Amino acid sequence: MAVYTHLGAEDFAELIAAYDVGALVSAKGIAEGVSNSNWLLETTGHDGRGARFILTMYERRIELGDLPFFLGLLDHLAARHCPVPRTIHDRTGAASRIVDGKAVALIEFLPGVSVDHPTQDQAHAVGRALAGIHLASADFPGRRANDLRPPDWRALFDQCGEQGLDSIDHQLPLLVADNLPRLEARWPEDLPRSIIHADLFPDNVLLLDGRVSGLIDFYFACHDITAYDLAVTHAAWCFDNGGRDFRPDVAAALMQGYESVRPLSAAERSALPLLAQGAALRFVATRAYDWLHTPADALVTRKDPMDFARRMRFYKEVQQIAFVG
Amino acid sequence: MAVYTHLGAEDFAELIAAYDVGALVSAKGIAEGVSNSNWLLETTGHDGRGARFILTMYERRIELGDLPFFLGLLDHLAARHCPVPRTIHDRTGAASRIVDGKAVALIEFLPGVSVDHPTQDQAHAVGRALAGIHLASADFPGRRANDLRPPDWRALFDQCGEQGLDSIDHQLPLLVADNLPRLEARWPEDLPRSIIHADLFPDNVLLLDGRVSGLIDFYFACHDITAYDLAVTHAAWCFDNGGRDFRPDVAAALMQGYESVRPLSAAERSALPLLAQGAALRFVATRAYDWLHTPADALVTRKDPMDFARRMRFYKEVQQIAFVG
Repeated sequence: MAVYTHLGAEDFAELIAAYDVGALVSAKGIAEGVSNSNWLLETTGHDGRGARFILTMYERRIELGDLPFFLGLLDHLAARHCPVPRTIHDRTGAASRIVDGKAVALIEFLPGVSVDHPTQDQAHAVGRALAGIHLASADFPGRRANDLRPPDWRALFDQCGEQGLDSIDHQLPLLVADNLPRLEARWPEDLPRSIIHADLFPDNVLLLDGRVSGLIDFYFACHDITAYDLAVTHAAWCFDNGGRDFRPDVAAALMQGYESVRPLSAAERSALPLLAQGAALRFVATRAYDWLHTPADALVTRKDPMDFARRMRFYKEVQQIAFVG
Repeated sequence: MAVYTHLGAEDFAELIAAYDVGALVSAKGIAEGVSNSNWLLETTGHDGRGARFILTMYERRIELGDLPFFLGLLDHLAARHCPVPRTIHDRTGAASRIVDGKAVALIEFLPGVSVDHPTQDQAHAVGRALAGIHLASADFPGRRANDLRPPDWRALFDQCGEQGLDSIDHQLPLLVADNLPRLEARWPEDLPRSIIHADLFPDNVLLLDGRVSGLIDFYFACHDITAYDLAVTHAAWCFDNGGRDFRPDVAAALMQGYESVRPLSAAERSALPLLAQGAALRFVATRAYDWLHTPADALVTRKDPMDFARRMRFYKEVQQIAFVG
């Protein structure tokens, strides 16, 4: 949530000159992205009417080799009218460039604002948009494996250690021990797969006038179980108050919106409670790891793993997600 | 350099409704301000043509009692055609509001970009703009004392302690002991005073097409020696390479630009080398304090106090700043 690299007017001007976007008018470092630096750039535009872009510098964590997947996916989805930002290519046609030894990409700026407490209409719109990218990515040739599947959750929990988990919350070691083996054993292998966003939290969705104006931050996107993406989105959108309060109306709207574009198969529907438990545990795993590995006085706000431990318990109790609303 | 408070679409919409600026279109947290949170907001505008603003939330350090001074000063200078952002007043006429128990202000967005390596023309333009605010603030009725005068530098160095200073650089304790008493004793009390910016570093100046499009971040502004502000600006703009390389051409252009609008008196001119030593030592003091009080693993980049220790030595050696170019 910071800008890790300093760039001045001279750096921006040199970079912008490689693109057909006019001259630089403004540049502001923006507080988005956990491991990237991002700037909101304004230029005079290729037609002189002004244009805005997000400049992303990939500081770490993301493998350079994955960039063509991420950036190509944006172009693929945007061409199919999904509300995702296009990658701006430079004059040589390249989707990314190197600045200061780091890869950067220029990405279309999309209007809209992220909500904290979605309404039913907003959840419905998000469900539709999510189903839209599942369908539109069917013929995308890129592949990237999900590096946060059940064995990866286990590896993260192992690195936390039982003592580490206990230091976060006394209930956490038992919650992991009770559920991780079961989810690993029963994790479905025969459900439909596609490109999934895998991290569609409210702060990765821009809304404007009741419609989804942008799905952003595809840096967890990968090829995996399609319905798992819906489960992640369900876990991310349908609770309030740190995972304590389930919002059945919002959940029902999300499901209806999704199924209005891509109806679930019976197998997918019946797998949803299990997939949602896994989705919740995946965020418990990364949050617990980050909790123990982020200095308490760092400016990054640590996210409480227990917010998703509560969701995990909720999903374990319900029988069928589609009907809990 | 971060956003310390989370605000969602609902919060922004509620806030924006108090102003005559149209509906919210976009909101991005921006990485500016050391102790404030800032967002770049886009709205449909009061006339539907779109408008952009900086929303600042005052998180700490700045006394609420000083806000009318800072915000009133912007309005005063903007009305006199200085390139500073106007404060947007709400429908009741208030320049600030309270959100989440903290003061916020909506400020005009200005285009332009900060440079790292100013050209002579840019330094000339900055000199003119600085002199412009000195003249234009003559009839501003607000008053705020400078809380970073020589006794305050001493208090900061005292809090660092000799051991602390030595841990930053072995030369630092002697540099302070050798120069602080002399500057305190000789600090001029009879030079012309006015409102001063007091922190006009390149990152607080927006440039566009060779002109100054914005002077920003007036949160150190106060009533003090006018020529001291020029000395601060000189120290901030006329060196490269961590204070090692003086840039006489840029310095001469800055001085010429300044004097083309507000010629210095003989007393001011002859005091400049001393004022510039003080300006340099003021930044040694705050940087040394921050160096020792910022966790090494915090995301904030600590600024090296020695960058200004070198400038302090430079200014001690020169006889007359106006002619070093």
